[in-house]
Amino acid sequence: MNDVSSGGRGTPAGIEFWFEFASTYSYLSVMRIEDAAQRHGVPVIWKPFLLGPVFKALGMDNSPFVLQKEKGDYMWRDMSRQCSKHGLPWVRPSVFPRVGLLALRLALLGAEEGWMGAFCRRVMQLNFAQDRDINDEAALRGILDELGVPAGTLARAADAPVKARLREQTDEARRRGVFGAPTFFVGTEMFWGDDRLDDALRFAAAAAAGREGA
Amino acid sequence: MNDVSSGGRGTPAGIEFWFEFASTYSYLSVMRIEDAAQRHGVPVIWKPFLLGPVFKALGMDNSPFVLQKEKGDYMWRDMSRQCSKHGLPWVRPSVFPRVGLLALRLALLGAEEGWMGAFCRRVMQLNFAQDRDINDEAALRGILDELGVPAGTLARAADAPVKARLREQTDEARRRGVFGAPTFFVGTEMFWGDDRLDDALRFAAAAAAGREGA
Repeated sequence: MNDVSSGGRGTPAGIEFWFEFASTYSYLSVMRIEDAAQRHGVPVIWKPFLLGPVFKALGMDNSPFVLQKEKGDYMWRDMSRQCSKHGLPWVRPSVFPRVGLLALRLALLGAEEGWMGAFCRRVMQLNFAQDRDINDEAALRGILDELGVPAGTLARAADAPVKARLREQTDEARRRGVFGAPTFFVGTEMFWGDDRLDDALRFAAAAAAGREGA
Repeated sequence: MNDVSSGGRGTPAGIEFWFEFASTYSYLSVMRIEDAAQRHGVPVIWKPFLLGPVFKALGMDNSPFVLQKEKGDYMWRDMSRQCSKHGLPWVRPSVFPRVGLLALRLALLGAEEGWMGAFCRRVMQLNFAQDRDINDEAALRGILDELGVPAGTLARAADAPVKARLREQTDEARRRGVFGAPTFFVGTEMFWGDDRLDDALRFAAAAAAGREGA
């Protein structure tokens, strides 16, 4: 029972997953995280947030992939290769970045519910596998119906408190130093980008093992 | 003998490695690339260039890690973790980014010579393991002496044609869409960042195998 030497004191057992439906590299992580986290025995804490205000606070009025042509051109090529590597479907969306406000509010409502992972994967597939609007009520209702989510959920997503919570969660992202998506936290340890998902999960699993062994 | 169906036509067998001695993530790749490339049977084509003019052309008057505090803070934490993961020494340099003009010119002279890999690793260790000036003539002379490089090489690095070649190589980086370092090319296929080194090597090895099998 030595919390200090194990370094595990206060470290939550889970991995916080900060993501945006408009974000290409968040697509990779949304599709992969539940399976990967399960293999490591690490719970996923879903943290949808708005990337736009975060970019704006950093002095950018759009995605860096739009503002910097070279980086954008490369990203599209890289995404195509990454999807092929992970066996994920991929269609370059005709609109980028897509507004996903309603989908993010729904994700906020579902964050702690069993349908969250499947919902997020379907929204991401709308955007990056089917090139469809992710802010479309009918499309989102279709997904919720398929997942057996209570009918009133879509209406609740438009409530003022839900809107306020998404803004608060976005403010929290900024306060904690988030500058892009996806971002993972294990306690205060931050990992940026889909490329760090496995490192973050290993870190979380090791922290949990340290705590158990303490 | 079907070059078209193999897709191998005109693909060079090697991996071009575009790097800068000031760049933190180039440190990781410089330390890893020769061993990793040898395991894949892929020759390394060393391409030192100046990152400053590339950033300037993209509208940035310094490293993005300096211009964007959040990204910079994260990078230092990430570098420390990455070095520990790869078993590399790490000291956060007290000057960043460090001017490495003389070292880059020397690297240009050594690009096709046997001492190139060892020279680059020692320059990188000066910067990121010993926190020392990498533009210091005495330090660089010491490295060249240790590696048995002819005594006249240091003087040749200051010749006008060598200076011009470094500028030309930097222009070529910009023309080919390079926006950061390290960047790898296999033919026209571009890979950005130390995180893509293994993907780039696998791509190069597969391209070479396709060509042989054609």
